[in-house]
Amino acid sequence: MKNLLYFQSGGPTSVINTSLYGVIKEAKKHPEIGGIFASLYGIEGVLNDNLIDLRQESEETVELLPQTPGAILGTARYKLSSDVNHLDYQKILATLKKYNIGYLLVNGGNDSMDTCHKLSKLMKEVGYDCNVIGIPKTIDNDLANTDHCLGFPSAAKFVLQTLQDVAIDNLVYNKGKVAIVEVMGRNAGWLTAVATLLEGEVKADRIYLPEDTFNLETFLEEVKQVYEKKKKGLFVISEGILAQMPHQGKEVDGFGHVQMGGVAYQLAQIVKDRFGYSTRPIEFSLMQRAAAQYITLVDSKEAIKVSSIAVKKAVKGKTDSMVVISRKSDEPFKVSFKLQKLNKIANVEKKLSPEQVMDVHGEGTLMKRYVRPLLKGSPKFVYENGLIKRAILKKAKVK
Amino acid sequence: MKNLLYFQSGGPTSVINTSLYGVIKEAKKHPEIGGIFASLYGIEGVLNDNLIDLRQESEETVELLPQTPGAILGTARYKLSSDVNHLDYQKILATLKKYNIGYLLVNGGNDSMDTCHKLSKLMKEVGYDCNVIGIPKTIDNDLANTDHCLGFPSAAKFVLQTLQDVAIDNLVYNKGKVAIVEVMGRNAGWLTAVATLLEGEVKADRIYLPEDTFNLETFLEEVKQVYEKKKKGLFVISEGILAQMPHQGKEVDGFGHVQMGGVAYQLAQIVKDRFGYSTRPIEFSLMQRAAAQYITLVDSKEAIKVSSIAVKKAVKGKTDSMVVISRKSDEPFKVSFKLQKLNKIANVEKKLSPEQVMDVHGEGTLMKRYVRPLLKGSPKFVYENGLIKRAILKKAKVK
Repeated sequence: MKNLLYFQSGGPTSVINTSLYGVIKEAKKHPEIGGIFASLYGIEGVLNDNLIDLRQESEETVELLPQTPGAILGTARYKLSSDVNHLDYQKILATLKKYNIGYLLVNGGNDSMDTCHKLSKLMKEVGYDCNVIGIPKTIDNDLANTDHCLGFPSAAKFVLQTLQDVAIDNLVYNKGKVAIVEVMGRNAGWLTAVATLLEGEVKADRIYLPEDTFNLETFLEEVKQVYEKKKKGLFVISEGILAQMPHQGKEVDGFGHVQMGGVAYQLAQIVKDRFGYSTRPIEFSLMQRAAAQYITLVDSKEAIKVSSIAVKKAVKGKTDSMVVISRKSDEPFKVSFKLQKLNKIANVEKKLSPEQVMDVHGEGTLMKRYVRPLLKGSPKFVYENGLIKRAILKKAKVK
Repeated sequence: MKNLLYFQSGGPTSVINTSLYGVIKEAKKHPEIGGIFASLYGIEGVLNDNLIDLRQESEETVELLPQTPGAILGTARYKLSSDVNHLDYQKILATLKKYNIGYLLVNGGNDSMDTCHKLSKLMKEVGYDCNVIGIPKTIDNDLANTDHCLGFPSAAKFVLQTLQDVAIDNLVYNKGKVAIVEVMGRNAGWLTAVATLLEGEVKADRIYLPEDTFNLETFLEEVKQVYEKKKKGLFVISEGILAQMPHQGKEVDGFGHVQMGGVAYQLAQIVKDRFGYSTRPIEFSLMQRAAAQYITLVDSKEAIKVSSIAVKKAVKGKTDSMVVISRKSDEPFKVSFKLQKLNKIANVEKKLSPEQVMDVHGEGTLMKRYVRPLLKGSPKFVYENGLIKRAILKKAKVK
């Protein structure tokens, strides 16, 4: 009998702990699985021999995981060396052997799937028998070969509803106002593209994706055109366009605290300085990946299902793979799940296609069809003192 | 038979349109009321003869008002002159007479109640028969002689839940991080004080109210102490402490875009510059007053009830008054409603008492008892394409 090890990796989402829930629930059904362990702070806990025993957690705590955002086990952004002779790999193998790990489940995004892939190869080379399965997770939605990523639907619901709320608020005064909203997504514009779903008076005036070429002067010209026409403006900007901002010259120098203020603040200041318009920079910040209230039923159910499949496949001897979601139909929304080899996932970044970029700047027909089914429903939450009750783990060390 | 005129004034809340809903529903029950009119953009619509006929709005649209944030009629921050001989008053009287307004309902905060009071006095002086009733509204919760203000409960729910979400997210990495969160409230710290309700690992390390004396060096010392102890920090700051920030000297000069970046951004930059800590400034911005998803059942029901009383009292001949909420018990939560003369409300700002400030910096027993009952429940929302469906008014001009 072998033990199972699970860890969380990369940026959190509001359903990553739902994946953990799914793993615990499924693993408990399998007599082949002995210990159900987790590493604290992602791969760091494996490197530092910092493992906890999930069987020690109460049923009540486990039931609260699907309504607890963040990464309850702690996470890491630790990039393993591409040299498989690096000491790190020896440390990892030592931990896996010490705890007799036969099933390794890694819940993460692109970089984490790269880690998984390297580990799988290493274990094959050294002849250590451990099945590695990836569980996809990223609000950026940029993993390849899957229709969408766990965490994206809930983040999308936050972004869409909050954009509508601030767009409505931006219309209340009978005077000029330019709102500039910044959405996460460094290289892929999926989450920003959700703005395409706004319609009517609250429609975004312009959407700026990292897939676009961003030119500051063109942006200023577009703001001016919109403002002169209606004295209002809603501009939705991906944080990823930061990489294309000119960090020299008078406009930026005085307030170019890039890592602090973010793109929305910089652009709002530039618009104000150039045209004197009243501006309102809004950054969705951690809320877009952590808002428990916006977890969608689709996201939550899929997170549980994907974990269940990951555990089952690992037990059946599958390895070096990630569970992917394949869409069968939009309406009614139907998906299926299957395994995909990690070399098809690791280090591949799925961006919007040129056709999809055009759609975002046009009618948004494709994007509406893609995103709307993901937004449906909400899980039923348990509240305590007016707050969504969060799980608090005991985190008992593995003996 | 006289007509009724309603308008929205000051900053929006997520339930100000619920108040409008309550007014329409109640007014339709009274045969004494002829036209049900609204002014666009607050008092500006009265000054500029810009009135719409609410009886022209469909039942379906009216039913969506309680789930539509913002101020759907438009609002204004227009301060009337204290000289009652000012031309504005003549314009207002002219509009009221032109449309035969016998009932004037004003939905607003402090300044708006001052407007109401001035208008009441004027109408009495000139002998024009029109009953003026105020409907309280402000997320700042700073109106005197009422237990709380409509809009505050929903804003409080947003602030509390979102603080918990970002606090959880702030704990995920095994490295230092200081989160600095900015909450609305220029002179009164009610909304910031809601942070007192966080408990355990997500508890705020320090809360800074506008009622406190803010000293930058003391703040920095407090951040340092917290960080050295646990390498994490959650500091919740009222935007109102901006008035106490030193706007000269090296620390602020380089990035002191006061009206843009807000307090959180400034302080995060100062902390980073001084100590080199990784910081995360978060501004709750328009979301805290506009998040439809966080409307509480208590807030929604009270908004409807208060409007209903306002209409009834106006019809019964009451004037120069605002409907106030009086709390009978915390658990079970019971309130009663009554009229209060506007001279007891106008231009009085209710801040936290010294005892309440001490409570916020201590155990928070008072604040928990005060806020928790307000957070209860959610209205049932109608969704469309994944979004909370918003009301869109026809806004037919009064003929």
